[in-house]
Formats: sequence, structure tokens, C-alpha cells
Amino acid sequence: MILTVTLNTALDITYRVPALKPHASHRVTEVTERPGGKGLNVARVLAALGHEVTVTGFTGGATGRAVQEQLTAVPRLVDALVPVTGASRRTIAVADERTGDTTQLNEPGPTIGPAEWTAFQEAYEDLLASVSAVALCGSLPPGVPVGAYAGLIRTARSAGVPVLLDTSGEPLRRGVAARPDIVKPNADELAELTGSHEPLRGAQDARRRGAHAVVASLGANGLLAVTPEGRWHATPPAHLHGNPTGAGDSAVAGLLSGLVENLPWPDRLSRAVALSAATVLAPVAGEFDPAAYEDVVGRVAVNGRVSAAQGASPSS
Amino acid sequence: MILTVTLNTALDITYRVPALKPHASHRVTEVTERPGGKGLNVARVLAALGHEVTVTGFTGGATGRAVQEQLTAVPRLVDALVPVTGASRRTIAVADERTGDTTQLNEPGPTIGPAEWTAFQEAYEDLLASVSAVALCGSLPPGVPVGAYAGLIRTARSAGVPVLLDTSGEPLRRGVAARPDIVKPNADELAELTGSHEPLRGAQDARRRGAHAVVASLGANGLLAVTPEGRWHATPPAHLHGNPTGAGDSAVAGLLSGLVENLPWPDRLSRAVALSAATVLAPVAGEFDPAAYEDVVGRVAVNGRVSAAQGASPSS
Repeated sequence: MILTVTLNTALDITYRVPALKPHASHRVTEVTERPGGKGLNVARVLAALGHEVTVTGFTGGATGRAVQEQLTAVPRLVDALVPVTGASRRTIAVADERTGDTTQLNEPGPTIGPAEWTAFQEAYEDLLASVSAVALCGSLPPGVPVGAYAGLIRTARSAGVPVLLDTSGEPLRRGVAARPDIVKPNADELAELTGSHEPLRGAQDARRRGAHAVVASLGANGLLAVTPEGRWHATPPAHLHGNPTGAGDSAVAGLLSGLVENLPWPDRLSRAVALSAATVLAPVAGEFDPAAYEDVVGRVAVNGRVSAAQGASPSS
Repeated sequence: MILTVTLNTALDITYRVPALKPHASHRVTEVTERPGGKGLNVARVLAALGHEVTVTGFTGGATGRAVQEQLTAVPRLVDALVPVTGASRRTIAVADERTGDTTQLNEPGPTIGPAEWTAFQEAYEDLLASVSAVALCGSLPPGVPVGAYAGLIRTARSAGVPVLLDTSGEPLRRGVAARPDIVKPNADELAELTGSHEPLRGAQDARRRGAHAVVASLGANGLLAVTPEGRWHATPPAHLHGNPTGAGDSAVAGLLSGLVENLPWPDRLSRAVALSAATVLAPVAGEFDPAAYEDVVGRVAVNGRVSAAQGASPSS
């Protein structure tokens, strides 16, 4: 069982409009809804890969109920979201049929009260007893302390559960200092954390700050991993045309599934890059295309080297 | 008891953003939600005026539940919405803090099945037995026949219940032919119905097409009423600055309340114009300001004349 945490769960709504014009009135021609927030996206990909997965975080209001109703349809996924008084947020993606571009409107999310935050931490600690890995994903809703992920990482480490962190800004900075097993920043998040716009230098710096392994997602340039076992750069076979929404979440699912299956790093990275590529290529934003995954996974180029100190024993 | 019908109920959501830029990502700074659709707006104003009011139409999904939860907080309002499988629509108004302008995104609404439409018609006929007037308001959701309002008008007339129609396009054209007691088009809707851009000429034509009384809303120029009892033009005391959202719905509430209280037409029109003005002046879009209403109602100018044939007996 893998656990994913989504403190700021969302109902992701996509509107198709013929052409978005500010200050005009638009008739929406197509509406689609799906559960959102990074941890829920990661969980859906893990479940599609055949893993049992539990999701936790917060849920509230009519939007939270809509999210939970849709989660019941996902096989191998257990809903352990913690109820709160406020309503889960919506995100609206307005897709312009004329230009193909998308305009995004993100609600901030419900304000979490101190008692709700305490209830979550207790539920989280209970769930850790039966999981093999945990992913902490996305932004914090109002009311949750900025050091939240740092605390959740320490709790996981005390329970002996490996933990992956995927967030940004100050929650990432504080989380890294709590020594997570893996952090997965994108290039911008890594630069904001370390001040370096050179990914290798940034990843090395993030390790010095406390992360055991750093996997930086570099968009079309794939993934750069700097780990105690060595460093690798994994790239997809060709430049991909499609929608990058959710590609980073699919990479997290690839890394986590590889971790619990004890795959060597190059295989984890091949899987993560192929899942990202299959997400970019999927017709529905944020889903992944299983046929594209099978096609790409054998053709990911992984270049790098095992660390000298770890050469004889590649597992940490 | 007054009945209002809203076949395409909505959850009206307002987002405040610092500045709307197409193809950018926006953090929404403020979210407000209220029950929407013209008939629900009319009902809320009637209830605020002290009338007992029943609302019917369709409700479905998480959005329908959110609408119904908010309606429970309105005193003197009875919820008789008919459940359907599809989800009630959302409307999103994106208010740009920089320009003060609003961008509107309207979902089309759920598709209503034939059995659901039949169930509604039966519920409507039952409700007519205990009401003194009915208002049919707004657009039709997908699946409801374009002649829906015409049928509902004939049912009300058979039951001896006066009926007001506020819609547009083909549903208005067919509805007028079914001889409603009052229609309340705005200038554009009246021009589309009659081909005339001159409101008095258009209103006279709409009466020839079947409407007993026509009250055209002319924005800042108030209301023009052409009725069997006479014709009047009612104008607010000064040009009003504010948000016109819901001003037409408040006018409908004024006309309906005046009808059930057997007020003479000039008093009905004063009330309707003052409620519209108090809606434009209210700080929250679509609400009305009771103090502004009391201030304006005595200062509405009503000019016109009683019909020669009706001069001795001004009530119809």
C-alpha cells in the first residue's frame, strides 16, 4: 500500500469555449470534472499501474463530495480523506478552441482550523503503520502551518516509511531540511530553493540542504537524478507534442512505484520519464495513455554514473 | 403563495481576480456562491418583501445540492425543485479588480430526460392548486421542448392562476402565443420578438401576438407598460451607478407582488422600478438594498394614461 497526501484537494473543472474574450459573456460548450490536487493525480496513476493506494488530505463541502464520488470509481484506491468544515477548492481551466490555449482560475481552498489540522496529523500517523511509502504533494491550504510538510516528513521517518516531497516555495524549503528520501522539484522550484539556475548544481545543493535524493523534472529534457547511489539524466526518445498538465505527477508515481518495487534508479527513471511522456500524449489532460507508456518505456535514454563510494553496492 | 419556475437553476459563483489575462494562471482572491437562475432570484426578492413563495424547476448533482442548502436559509421560501440525474449548471462571473469589468462563463445545464420533464409537469400542476400567481423565468436546459413555456402557460390559465413570462428567443415567441397575463422582455428581447426597435410599437405588437400586458424593461430608462387598463412609462429619479445584474429579476418580483396585492398598474410599476434601482445600488450583485428601495419608491415618475374603454373601471 502506498499513501499519497493532498492537503489542498480540488475539483478540477475544464470548460471548452469557442474563444475567450475578457469582459464578454460565454456559453460553455463542454464541461468536464475530475478529482484534482497533485496527490490525487499521483494516486490515480499508481492505481492504474496496479498498486494499492490510499489517499488522504482534506475534503469538505459540495466540491469535496463530488471529488469523493468520483474517487469511488477508481479501482485499488482507498479514500481516507479527512472531513473539514470548509469546502474543497475548485480549479477552472478555460480551454480556448480557437487558440488551443488554456486560462487557469484556481480557488485558494478552505481555511483549515487548528483542530482539523490536529485530526489530520493523527489520521496520517495511523495510516503510516500500514504503508510502504508516502508522497506529500502540492500546495498548502490556508490555515495549515508553513512547516507542515517538515513535520509530516519527520513522522514518516520515525515510522520507517520512505517519503517523497513534491511542493514549492517555503513549504519545500522547510521540508527539505527535514531530510525526505526524495524531492521532485521542477527547474523553477529548484532554482527558487537553491538560487542556482543550473539543475545539476541546484540538485547537489538541495542534497546538502537535507534531501537524500533529488529528482529534478526538466520538461522536455526529462529527469535529472542526484542520489547517494549515483547521478543520472533520463530523456524521452523525441520531443513530444501534447498537454503537459499532470506530467510531473505521473513522474512522481513512476518514482514511487519504482521505490516500493526496489528497482534500481535507472529503471525508476525510465518508468517516470515514460509515464510523463504518456501523460503529455494522452487525449485527456492529466490522464496517461497506457499504449504510449509501453511504447516509450524501452526507449528512454538514461545516462549517468554510479557513485564511487556506492559502486559495489548500488542500493542504499 | 407565489410560485416561481426556474427550469435551468444555477449555482452562481463570483471570482475576484487582480487582473484577468487570457492564457495565464490566476489565483482567485475571493469566492462567493449563491443560488441562481432568474426564478430563484425573483423568489428571493419576493420573500424579502414578505411574500410566501415556492420555487420549482430542476435540481441535480453536487451543484443542485449546494443550491438547495443555501435556499434553506431563506425565510418564507419553500423548495419544491424536482430532482434530475444531471447536475445543475454553474455560472462563473470573473470580476477583474483592475478594470471593474466582469467576464461571464455559463454552463449549458443538465440534459433533461422525457420522464423528468413529465415528472416536472405533474409537480407543477399540483403546485398550481395552492398559488395566487406564477412566474416562468429564464432559459430552458437541453432536452426541454422549445414550446415548454407555452404548455406551462396553458396549464396555469386552465387552473385560473395568473402567469408572468420572462424569457427570450423562441421560448418567448411560443410562450406569448399561449396568452400569458404579463410578459417582461428587455428592449433586445422585445426587438427580437417583434422586429421593432421602438419599444412602444414592439409592446403593442407583443400584445397583438397574445400577451395581455407587456412590461418592457428599458435599463436606465425604467419600465414601459402596455396593458388592457392603459399604458404607462415609469422612470427612476436619477441615473444610477452600480451593477445591473438581477435588476430585471427584481422588477419581475415587483410586478408579481403588485399583481397578487391587486395594486393599480402605476403602483406596481413604481415598486418594480424602485426594486430594480435598489438592486443596481446594492453592494452585492443581485441582492437589493431595502433602504434604497424605501428611498426611491416614492420618487419614481409614472406617466401615462388609462385606456378609454377601461377608464371607469381601472382593474381588469
